[in-house]
Amino acid sequence: MNYCSDCGEQVEQRIPDGDNRHRYVCTHCDIIHYQNPRIIAGTVPVWDNRILLCRRAIEPRYGYWTLPAGFMENQETTVEAAARETREEALAEVHIEGLYAVIDVPHIDQVHIFYRATLIDGMYGAGEESLETQLFEPSDIPWDELSFPTVRKTLEFFINDMKKQTFEVHVDSIRHPMAKSEKA
Amino acid sequence: MNYCSDCGEQVEQRIPDGDNRHRYVCTHCDIIHYQNPRIIAGTVPVWDNRILLCRRAIEPRYGYWTLPAGFMENQETTVEAAARETREEALAEVHIEGLYAVIDVPHIDQVHIFYRATLIDGMYGAGEESLETQLFEPSDIPWDELSFPTVRKTLEFFINDMKKQTFEVHVDSIRHPMAKSEKA
Repeated sequence: MNYCSDCGEQVEQRIPDGDNRHRYVCTHCDIIHYQNPRIIAGTVPVWDNRILLCRRAIEPRYGYWTLPAGFMENQETTVEAAARETREEALAEVHIEGLYAVIDVPHIDQVHIFYRATLIDGMYGAGEESLETQLFEPSDIPWDELSFPTVRKTLEFFINDMKKQTFEVHVDSIRHPMAKSEKA
Repeated sequence: MNYCSDCGEQVEQRIPDGDNRHRYVCTHCDIIHYQNPRIIAGTVPVWDNRILLCRRAIEPRYGYWTLPAGFMENQETTVEAAARETREEALAEVHIEGLYAVIDVPHIDQVHIFYRATLIDGMYGAGEESLETQLFEPSDIPWDELSFPTVRKTLEFFINDMKKQTFEVHVDSIRHPMAKSEKA
């Protein structure tokens, strides 16, 4: 951030009165421009005990498999965002079953929120951001070709819970991309 | 938003190629300035079956009772943000027991996330943003003097769960400030 989005003059980084963190503050109109983490909302879509994954048609991680998820938009709920991303990336309508995972990723200022979901009619396809989509048996998850650490973590939780047939809500954090050796 | 925070030139609102929503786009450097919901993180702090509330010393809702909560900052986790807000507003160190409520508030582009927490040593006080703090028996919650709908909703869930002695994770959304008649 270089310029004030309100008045167009230059901003500087300083600690405002009564605060204890550096903020972007306008040198002209004194407005403080706060910056906060963003939410990625998505689903674990299931059909007939298989999990729907999408192969990414966009960077980053082009060609890698992911759960449908993306930036939550203003004016929507986390449930609506998760269902919308599933519709956009996997052309699938889902029934949201419940909150499943909240995974903080503080080094990139994100919180990833996944809901358990069931395909409504078993239909799915490849949206514009996906090369293909496919239902995977738990034993066939392409662990070496997953897109992001939060996707891996959520799938690890989910497959473990499938075995136990009880789905808890999982809260976790990932501070740095996981090494391969941490693979479940 | 009037000006580009990158180059200082004017922005306009339009739907970028490949998108389906209006965004602020710079007329000079073409950068898209996305705007996303923000997270409010807080706790339901408990000591000896009583709930710690803070009376707000700041606007909005000056003088009303609230759960300790505030805007999550970059570079922290939701758990860290919830504990930090409790420290700042109630001068209390807490042990985080688990995720408790995720309440979407789409008309103000916020997601409120509350954790169950226990005071570590029973100590608390009034931070700079609080006039006073007090432990309330469930039967003494000042329902008519609560600060925000998400605080009311979370306390309703919590007191109901206290009776049942089982604490679930609650997901809900509030689209408009609740009328008094909706009080539990």
